Amino acid sequence: MDYERDPARIFAQSMAELEAMEIFNDLPQELHAIARRMVHACGVPEIVPLIRWHGNPHAAARSAIAQGANILCDTEMVAHGVLRPPLEARAQEAGNSKAAQVLCLLNDPRSATLGKEQKITRSAAGVALWPPLLEGAVVAIGNAPTALFRLLEGLLEESWPRPAVIFGLPVGFIGATESKEALLQSAAQLSDLAFVTLVGRQGGSAIAAAAVNATSAEQ
Amino acid sequence: MDYERDPARIFAQSMAELEAMEIFNDLPQELHAIARRMVHACGVPEIVPLIRWHGNPHAAARSAIAQGANILCDTEMVAHGVLRPPLEARAQEAGNSKAAQVLCLLNDPRSATLGKEQKITRSAAGVALWPPLLEGAVVAIGNAPTALFRLLEGLLEESWPRPAVIFGLPVGFIGATESKEALLQSAAQLSDLAFVTLVGRQGGSAIAAAAVNATSAEQ
Repeated sequence: MDYERDPARIFAQSMAELEAMEIFNDLPQELHAIARRMVHACGVPEIVPLIRWHGNPHAAARSAIAQGANILCDTEMVAHGVLRPPLEARAQEAGNSKAAQVLCLLNDPRSATLGKEQKITRSAAGVALWPPLLEGAVVAIGNAPTALFRLLEGLLEESWPRPAVIFGLPVGFIGATESKEALLQSAAQLSDLAFVTLVGRQGGSAIAAAAVNATSAEQ
Repeated sequence: MDYERDPARIFAQSMAELEAMEIFNDLPQELHAIARRMVHACGVPEIVPLIRWHGNPHAAARSAIAQGANILCDTEMVAHGVLRPPLEARAQEAGNSKAAQVLCLLNDPRSATLGKEQKITRSAAGVALWPPLLEGAVVAIGNAPTALFRLLEGLLEESWPRPAVIFGLPVGFIGATESKEALLQSAAQLSDLAFVTLVGRQGGSAIAAAAVNATSAEQ
Protein backbone atom coordinates (compact mmCIF):
# COMPACT_ATOMS: atom_id res chain seq x y z
CA MET A 1 0.00 0.00 0.00
CA ASP A 2 1.14 3.49 -0.76
CA TYR A 3 1.19 5.76 2.28
CA GLU A 4 3.57 7.93 4.27
CA ARG A 5 5.28 5.66 6.79
CA ASP A 6 7.96 7.88 8.31
CA PRO A 7 6.81 9.31 11.66
CA ALA A 8 8.89 12.51 11.47
CA ARG A 9 7.57 13.29 7.98
CA ILE A 10 3.97 12.53 9.02
CA PHE A 11 4.17 14.96 11.91
CA ALA A 12 5.87 17.68 9.86
CA GLN A 13 3.34 17.30 7.01
CA SER A 14 0.43 17.41 9.47
CA MET A 15 1.67 20.64 11.02
CA ALA A 16 2.40 22.14 7.56
CA GLU A 17 -1.09 21.24 6.35
CA LEU A 18 -2.62 22.83 9.44
CA GLU A 19 -0.57 26.02 8.93
CA ALA A 20 -1.56 26.16 5.26
CA MET A 21 -5.24 26.22 6.26
CA GLU A 22 -4.65 29.68 7.79
CA ILE A 23 -7.25 29.09 10.47
CA PHE A 24 -5.22 30.45 13.37
CA ASN A 25 -4.87 34.05 12.19
CA ASP A 26 -7.45 35.42 14.61
CA LEU A 27 -5.67 33.94 17.64
CA PRO A 28 -2.72 35.60 19.37
CA GLN A 29 0.63 34.02 18.52
CA GLU A 30 1.00 32.43 21.96
CA LEU A 31 -2.16 30.38 21.38
CA HIS A 32 -1.13 28.94 18.00
CA ALA A 33 0.78 25.90 19.25
CA ILE A 34 -2.06 24.88 21.57
CA ALA A 35 -4.74 25.44 18.91
CA ARG A 36 -2.75 23.52 16.29
CA ARG A 37 -2.41 20.47 18.54
CA MET A 38 -6.06 20.63 19.56
CA VAL A 39 -7.19 20.57 15.92
CA HIS A 40 -4.66 17.84 15.13
CA ALA A 41 -6.10 15.69 17.93
CA CYS A 42 -9.70 15.73 16.66
CA GLY A 43 -9.41 16.45 12.93
CA VAL A 44 -11.95 19.27 13.20
CA PRO A 45 -10.63 22.71 12.09
CA GLU A 46 -14.05 24.16 12.94
CA ILE A 47 -13.17 24.15 16.66
CA VAL A 48 -10.77 27.10 16.24
CA PRO A 49 -13.41 29.86 16.53
CA LEU A 50 -14.71 28.10 19.68
CA ILE A 51 -11.42 28.42 21.57
CA ARG A 52 -11.51 30.76 24.56
CA TRP A 53 -8.68 31.54 26.96
CA HIS A 54 -7.57 33.68 29.83
CA GLY A 55 -4.04 34.88 30.55
CA ASN A 56 -1.25 33.09 28.73
CA PRO A 57 -1.94 29.36 29.17
CA HIS A 58 1.05 28.33 27.06
CA ALA A 59 3.56 30.27 29.14
CA ALA A 60 1.89 29.27 32.41
CA ALA A 61 1.91 25.55 31.58
CA ARG A 62 5.42 25.61 30.14
CA SER A 63 6.80 27.29 33.23
CA ALA A 64 4.91 24.94 35.59
CA ILE A 65 6.17 21.92 33.67
CA ALA A 66 9.77 23.19 33.78
CA GLN A 67 9.36 23.47 37.55
CA GLY A 68 8.18 19.86 37.84
CA ALA A 69 4.57 20.69 38.65
CA ASN A 70 1.82 18.13 39.08
CA ILE A 71 -0.27 17.51 35.96
CA LEU A 72 -3.71 16.61 37.30
CA CYS A 73 -6.01 14.78 34.88
CA ASP A 74 -9.68 13.88 35.27
CA THR A 75 -9.34 10.51 33.49
CA GLU A 76 -6.75 7.86 32.75
CA MET A 77 -7.29 8.54 29.04
CA VAL A 78 -6.04 12.12 29.45
CA ALA A 79 -3.20 10.95 31.69
CA HIS A 80 -2.08 8.40 29.10
CA GLY A 81 -2.21 11.00 26.34
CA VAL A 82 0.30 13.30 28.06
CA LEU A 83 3.74 12.60 26.59
CA ARG A 84 6.40 11.91 29.22
CA PRO A 85 9.76 12.51 27.43
CA PRO A 86 9.13 16.26 26.90
CA LEU A 87 8.26 16.64 30.60
CA GLU A 88 11.67 15.22 31.47
CA ALA A 89 13.41 17.34 28.85
CA ARG A 90 11.84 20.61 30.04
CA ALA A 91 12.69 19.85 33.69
CA GLN A 92 16.26 18.96 32.76
CA GLU A 93 16.70 22.19 30.76
CA ALA A 94 15.55 24.13 33.80
CA GLY A 95 17.97 22.27 36.06
CA ASN A 96 15.25 20.40 37.94
CA SER A 97 15.99 16.83 38.90
CA LYS A 98 12.27 16.02 39.23
CA ALA A 99 10.12 16.09 36.10
CA ALA A 100 6.42 16.99 36.16
CA GLN A 101 4.27 14.10 37.43
CA VAL A 102 1.07 13.07 35.65
CA LEU A 103 -1.62 12.13 38.15
CA CYS A 104 -5.19 10.86 37.90
CA LEU A 105 -7.13 10.02 41.07
CA LEU A 106 -10.22 8.59 39.33
CA ASN A 107 -9.22 5.04 40.25
CA ASP A 108 -8.08 5.94 43.75
CA PRO A 109 -10.19 3.76 46.08
CA ARG A 110 -11.26 6.89 47.96
CA SER A 111 -12.93 8.24 44.78
CA ALA A 112 -15.17 5.19 44.47
CA THR A 113 -16.17 5.41 48.14
CA LEU A 114 -16.76 9.14 48.04
CA GLY A 115 -18.70 8.86 44.77
CA LYS A 116 -21.07 6.24 46.19
CA GLU A 117 -21.51 8.04 49.55
CA GLN A 118 -22.31 11.40 47.99
CA LYS A 119 -24.00 10.12 44.80
CA ILE A 120 -21.58 12.11 42.71
CA THR A 121 -19.52 10.99 39.72
CA ARG A 122 -16.24 9.24 40.38
CA SER A 123 -14.66 12.04 38.31
CA ALA A 124 -15.93 14.72 40.68
CA ALA A 125 -14.89 12.59 43.66
CA GLY A 126 -11.40 12.28 42.17
CA VAL A 127 -11.16 16.07 41.89
CA ALA A 128 -12.24 16.44 45.54
CA LEU A 129 -8.94 14.70 46.41
CA TRP A 130 -6.85 17.26 44.49
CA PRO A 131 -6.35 20.10 47.04
CA PRO A 132 -3.01 18.86 48.48
CA LEU A 133 -1.67 18.52 44.90
CA LEU A 134 -3.17 21.64 43.33
CA GLU A 135 -0.79 24.51 44.12
CA GLY A 136 0.86 25.59 40.84
CA ALA A 137 -0.40 22.50 39.00
CA VAL A 138 -1.38 22.01 35.37
CA VAL A 139 -5.00 20.79 35.29
CA ALA A 140 -6.28 18.85 32.27
CA ILE A 141 -9.99 17.98 32.21
CA GLY A 142 -11.04 16.18 29.04
CA ASN A 143 -14.04 14.15 29.95
CA ALA A 144 -16.33 14.99 32.84
CA PRO A 145 -18.23 18.28 33.18
CA THR A 146 -18.69 17.37 36.87
CA ALA A 147 -14.90 17.37 37.31
CA LEU A 148 -14.66 20.96 36.04
CA PHE A 149 -17.67 22.05 38.12
CA ARG A 150 -16.17 20.45 41.26
CA LEU A 151 -12.83 22.20 40.65
CA LEU A 152 -14.53 25.59 40.22
CA GLU A 153 -16.53 25.07 43.42
CA GLY A 154 -13.32 24.33 45.27
CA LEU A 155 -11.51 27.34 43.85
CA LEU A 156 -14.36 29.85 44.16
CA GLU A 157 -16.10 28.68 47.32
CA GLU A 158 -13.63 26.58 49.33
CA SER A 159 -10.35 28.50 48.97
CA TRP A 160 -8.51 25.60 47.32
CA PRO A 161 -4.89 26.27 46.36
CA ARG A 162 -4.53 27.79 42.89
CA PRO A 163 -3.29 25.75 39.93
CA ALA A 164 -1.13 27.55 37.35
CA VAL A 165 -3.38 26.72 34.41
CA ILE A 166 -6.57 24.82 33.55
CA PHE A 167 -7.14 23.02 30.27
CA GLY A 168 -10.90 22.85 30.76
CA LEU A 169 -12.15 20.63 27.93
CA PRO A 170 -14.95 18.32 29.09
CA VAL A 171 -17.22 16.95 26.39
CA GLY A 172 -20.84 15.96 26.01
CA PHE A 173 -24.49 16.74 26.21
CA ILE A 174 -25.25 17.21 29.92
CA GLY A 175 -23.26 19.91 31.68
CA ALA A 176 -20.30 20.26 29.29
CA THR A 177 -21.42 23.57 27.78
CA GLU A 178 -22.47 24.88 31.17
CA SER A 179 -19.28 23.85 33.00
CA LYS A 180 -17.14 25.64 30.41
CA GLU A 181 -19.38 28.70 30.64
CA ALA A 182 -18.81 28.64 34.42
CA LEU A 183 -15.04 28.51 33.81
CA LEU A 184 -15.27 31.55 31.51
CA GLN A 185 -17.32 33.45 34.06
CA SER A 186 -14.83 32.65 36.82
CA ALA A 187 -12.05 34.54 35.01
CA ALA A 188 -12.83 37.80 36.83
CA GLN A 189 -12.59 36.15 40.27
CA LEU A 190 -9.60 33.95 39.40
CA SER A 191 -7.73 36.61 37.49
CA ASP A 192 -4.25 35.15 38.11
CA LEU A 193 -5.29 31.77 36.69
CA ALA A 194 -4.67 30.97 33.02
CA PHE A 195 -7.03 28.67 31.13
CA VAL A 196 -8.07 27.34 27.74
CA THR A 197 -11.51 26.04 26.89
CA LEU A 198 -13.87 25.40 23.98
CA VAL A 199 -17.40 26.80 24.06
CA GLY A 200 -20.13 24.24 23.46
CA ARG A 201 -20.22 20.46 23.62
CA GLN A 202 -16.90 19.65 22.01
CA GLY A 203 -13.84 18.66 23.98
CA GLY A 204 -12.40 15.32 24.97
CA SER A 205 -9.44 13.53 26.43
CA ALA A 206 -7.37 13.59 23.23
CA ILE A 207 -7.86 17.35 22.83
CA ALA A 208 -6.99 17.98 26.49
CA ALA A 209 -3.84 15.86 26.36
CA ALA A 210 -2.81 17.45 23.05
CA ALA A 211 -3.15 20.94 24.55
CA VAL A 212 -0.81 19.97 27.40
CA ASN A 213 1.62 18.38 24.93
CA ALA A 214 1.70 21.63 22.92
CA THR A 215 3.13 23.41 25.95
CA SER A 216 5.84 20.85 26.74
CA ALA A 217 7.04 20.33 23.15
CA GLU A 218 10.52 21.29 22.01
CA GLN A 219 10.32 24.60 20.19
CA MET B 1 -23.22 25.76 41.78
CA ASP B 2 -26.32 24.33 40.20
CA TYR B 3 -25.62 21.28 38.05
CA GLU B 4 -26.61 17.63 37.75
CA ARG B 5 -24.32 15.65 40.07
CA ASP B 6 -25.81 12.14 39.99
CA PRO B 7 -23.87 9.90 37.57
CA ALA B 8 -26.82 7.63 36.72
CA ARG B 9 -29.05 10.61 35.92
CA ILE B 10 -26.30 12.29 33.85
CA PHE B 11 -25.88 9.19 31.70
CA ALA B 12 -29.64 8.64 31.29
CA GLN B 13 -30.21 12.31 30.38
CA SER B 14 -27.33 12.23 27.88
CA MET B 15 -28.73 9.20 26.12
CA ALA B 16 -32.28 10.68 26.19
CA GLU B 17 -31.02 13.95 24.71
CA LEU B 18 -29.21 12.05 21.96
CA GLU B 19 -32.33 10.02 21.16
CA ALA B 20 -34.44 13.18 21.06
CA MET B 21 -32.18 14.61 18.36
CA GLU B 22 -33.45 11.89 15.99
CA ILE B 23 -30.15 11.72 14.16
CA PHE B 24 -29.90 7.93 14.03
CA ASN B 25 -32.99 7.21 11.92
CA ASP B 26 -31.02 6.52 8.76
CA LEU B 27 -28.90 3.84 10.46
CA PRO B 28 -30.02 0.23 10.94
CA GLN B 29 -31.13 -0.54 14.48
CA GLU B 30 -28.03 -2.62 15.25
CA LEU B 31 -25.81 0.44 14.68
CA HIS B 32 -27.70 2.77 17.03
CA ALA B 33 -25.90 1.89 20.26
CA ILE B 34 -22.48 2.28 18.64
CA ALA B 35 -23.42 5.56 16.92
CA ARG B 36 -24.93 6.98 20.12
CA ARG B 37 -21.77 6.30 22.11
CA MET B 38 -19.55 7.67 19.34
CA VAL B 39 -21.46 10.96 19.29
CA HIS B 40 -21.50 11.05 23.10
CA ALA B 41 -17.71 10.70 23.15
CA CYS B 42 -16.99 13.71 20.92
CA GLY B 43 -20.06 15.93 21.29
CA VAL B 44 -20.43 16.19 17.51
CA PRO B 45 -23.79 14.92 16.15
CA GLU B 46 -22.55 15.80 12.66
CA ILE B 47 -20.44 12.62 12.56
CA VAL B 48 -23.52 10.40 12.16
CA PRO B 49 -23.80 10.72 8.36
CA LEU B 50 -20.07 9.90 8.14
CA ILE B 51 -20.44 6.49 9.81
CA ARG B 52 -19.76 3.53 7.50
CA TRP B 53 -19.86 -0.15 8.44
CA HIS B 54 -19.69 -3.66 7.11
CA GLY B 55 -21.46 -6.70 8.50
CA ASN B 56 -22.88 -6.38 12.01
CA PRO B 57 -20.07 -4.90 14.10
CA HIS B 58 -22.21 -4.77 17.26
CA ALA B 59 -23.06 -8.47 17.19
CA ALA B 60 -19.52 -9.44 16.17
CA ALA B 61 -17.90 -7.47 18.99
CA ARG B 62 -20.45 -8.55 21.60
CA SER B 63 -19.97 -12.20 20.75
CA ALA B 64 -16.15 -11.88 20.71
CA ILE B 65 -16.22 -10.12 24.09
CA ALA B 66 -18.49 -12.81 25.58
CA GLN B 67 -15.93 -15.37 24.41
CA GLY B 68 -13.08 -13.52 26.15
CA ALA B 69 -11.43 -12.27 22.94
CA ASN B 70 -8.40 -10.01 22.85
CA ILE B 71 -9.22 -6.32 22.45
CA LEU B 72 -6.26 -4.92 20.52
CA CYS B 73 -5.79 -1.13 20.74
CA ASP B 74 -3.38 1.09 18.84
CA THR B 75 -2.74 3.41 21.79
CA GLU B 76 -2.80 3.40 25.57
CA MET B 77 -5.47 6.11 25.42
CA VAL B 78 -7.85 3.76 23.62
CA ALA B 79 -6.92 0.90 25.95
CA HIS B 80 -7.64 3.05 29.00
CA GLY B 81 -10.99 4.13 27.58
CA VAL B 82 -12.30 0.56 27.31
CA LEU B 83 -14.41 -0.16 30.40
CA ARG B 84 -13.39 -3.35 32.21
CA PRO B 85 -16.44 -4.28 34.38
CA PRO B 86 -18.75 -4.94 31.36
CA LEU B 87 -16.09 -7.20 29.82
CA GLU B 88 -16.17 -9.30 32.98
CA ALA B 89 -19.97 -9.25 33.13
CA ARG B 90 -20.40 -10.40 29.51
CA ALA B 91 -17.88 -13.23 29.95
CA GLN B 92 -19.53 -14.34 33.16
CA GLU B 93 -22.98 -14.38 31.54
CA ALA B 94 -21.57 -16.60 28.80
CA GLY B 95 -20.03 -18.96 31.34
CA ASN B 96 -16.45 -18.00 30.48
CA SER B 97 -14.02 -17.78 33.35
CA LYS B 98 -11.67 -15.51 31.38
CA ALA B 99 -12.88 -12.02 30.46
CA ALA B 100 -11.73 -10.21 27.32
CA GLN B 101 -8.21 -8.79 27.69
CA VAL B 102 -7.39 -5.24 26.59
CA LEU B 103 -3.96 -5.09 24.98
CA CYS B 104 -1.79 -2.32 23.54
CA LEU B 105 1.68 -3.14 22.24
CA LEU B 106 2.71 0.46 21.49
CA ASN B 107 5.00 0.54 24.53
CA ASP B 108 6.34 -2.97 24.01
CA PRO B 109 10.12 -2.56 23.72
CA ARG B 110 10.01 -4.46 20.41
CA SER B 111 7.81 -1.71 18.92
CA ALA B 112 10.39 0.99 19.63
CA THR B 113 13.18 -1.13 18.13
CA LEU B 114 11.16 -2.11 15.06
CA GLY B 115 9.99 1.47 14.56
CA LYS B 116 13.54 2.83 14.58
CA GLU B 117 14.93 0.03 12.38
CA GLN B 118 12.24 0.35 9.72
CA LYS B 119 11.62 4.12 10.08
CA ILE B 120 7.94 3.46 10.68
CA THR B 121 5.68 4.79 13.42
CA ARG B 122 5.72 3.02 16.76
CA SER B 123 1.96 2.53 16.22
CA ALA B 124 2.54 0.58 13.01
CA ALA B 125 5.35 -1.37 14.67
CA GLY B 126 2.98 -2.24 17.53
CA VAL B 127 0.46 -3.60 15.03
CA ALA B 128 3.16 -5.70 13.37
CA LEU B 129 3.31 -7.63 16.67
CA TRP B 130 -0.42 -8.46 16.60
CA PRO B 131 -0.60 -11.64 14.46
CA PRO B 132 -0.38 -14.17 17.33
CA LEU B 133 -3.17 -12.25 19.13
CA LEU B 134 -5.42 -11.42 16.19
CA GLU B 135 -7.64 -14.46 15.61
CA GLY B 136 -11.20 -13.50 16.55
CA ALA B 137 -10.07 -10.28 18.24
CA VAL B 138 -11.79 -6.92 18.60
CA VAL B 139 -9.51 -4.27 17.04
CA ALA B 140 -9.84 -0.63 18.14
CA ILE B 141 -7.73 1.93 16.26
CA GLY B 142 -8.35 5.49 17.42
CA ASN B 143 -5.20 7.37 16.67
CA ALA B 144 -2.72 6.34 13.99
CA PRO B 145 -3.60 5.98 10.30
CA THR B 146 -0.39 3.96 9.95
CA ALA B 147 -1.76 1.40 12.43
CA LEU B 148 -4.83 0.83 10.26
CA PHE B 149 -2.75 0.72 7.06
CA ARG B 150 -0.36 -1.81 8.63
CA LEU B 151 -3.27 -4.01 9.75
CA LEU B 152 -4.82 -3.96 6.27
CA GLU B 153 -1.47 -4.87 4.69
CA GLY B 154 -1.21 -7.82 7.06
CA LEU B 155 -4.75 -9.00 6.38
CA LEU B 156 -4.76 -8.47 2.61
CA GLU B 157 -1.16 -9.28 1.69
CA GLU B 158 0.34 -11.38 4.49
CA SER B 159 -2.49 -13.77 5.41
CA TRP B 160 -2.70 -12.60 9.00
CA PRO B 161 -5.35 -14.30 11.17
CA ARG B 162 -8.75 -12.60 10.96
CA PRO B 163 -10.09 -10.46 13.78
CA ALA B 164 -13.84 -10.55 14.45
CA VAL B 165 -14.35 -6.80 14.06
CA ILE B 166 -12.38 -3.61 13.43
CA PHE B 167 -13.28 -0.24 14.93
CA GLY B 168 -11.18 1.70 12.43
CA LEU B 169 -11.23 5.28 13.69
CA PRO B 170 -7.85 6.96 13.24
CA VAL B 171 -7.83 10.75 13.18
CA GLY B 172 -5.93 13.55 11.52
CA PHE B 173 -4.62 15.26 8.45
CA ILE B 174 -2.06 12.87 6.94
CA GLY B 175 -3.36 9.43 6.03
CA ALA B 176 -6.47 9.26 8.20
CA THR B 177 -8.96 9.77 5.38
CA GLU B 178 -6.98 7.47 3.09
CA SER B 179 -6.56 4.67 5.65
CA LYS B 180 -10.30 4.58 6.30
CA GLU B 181 -10.97 4.61 2.55
CA ALA B 182 -8.64 1.59 2.28
CA LEU B 183 -10.64 -0.17 5.03
CA LEU B 184 -13.88 0.48 3.12
CA GLN B 185 -12.37 -0.82 -0.09
CA SER B 186 -11.14 -3.98 1.64
CA ALA B 187 -14.71 -5.03 2.52
CA ALA B 188 -15.07 -7.11 -0.67
CA GLN B 189 -11.90 -9.08 0.03
CA LEU B 190 -12.49 -9.41 3.77
CA SER B 191 -16.20 -10.14 3.50
CA ASP B 192 -16.43 -12.08 6.78
CA LEU B 193 -14.93 -9.19 8.74
CA ALA B 194 -17.22 -6.64 10.41
CA PHE B 195 -16.09 -3.04 10.82
CA VAL B 196 -17.13 0.50 11.69
CA THR B 197 -15.39 3.63 10.45
CA LEU B 198 -15.94 7.34 9.84
CA VAL B 199 -15.16 8.86 6.46
CA GLY B 200 -12.84 11.86 6.54
CA ARG B 201 -10.46 13.21 9.16
CA GLN B 202 -12.53 12.69 12.28
CA GLY B 203 -11.97 9.84 14.68
CA GLY B 204 -9.97 9.52 17.87
CA SER B 205 -9.24 7.41 20.87
CA ALA B 206 -12.34 8.44 22.82
CA ILE B 207 -14.62 7.62 19.88
CA ALA B 208 -12.91 4.24 19.33
CA ALA B 209 -13.14 3.27 23.00
CA ALA B 210 -16.76 4.43 23.17
CA ALA B 211 -17.67 2.26 20.17
CA VAL B 212 -16.21 -0.79 21.92
CA ASN B 213 -18.01 0.12 25.15
CA ALA B 214 -21.31 0.31 23.26
CA THR B 215 -20.97 -3.37 22.39
CA SER B 216 -20.12 -4.59 25.89
CA ALA B 217 -22.76 -2.54 27.73
CA GLU B 218 -25.63 -4.13 29.63
CA GLN B 219 -28.74 -3.97 27.46
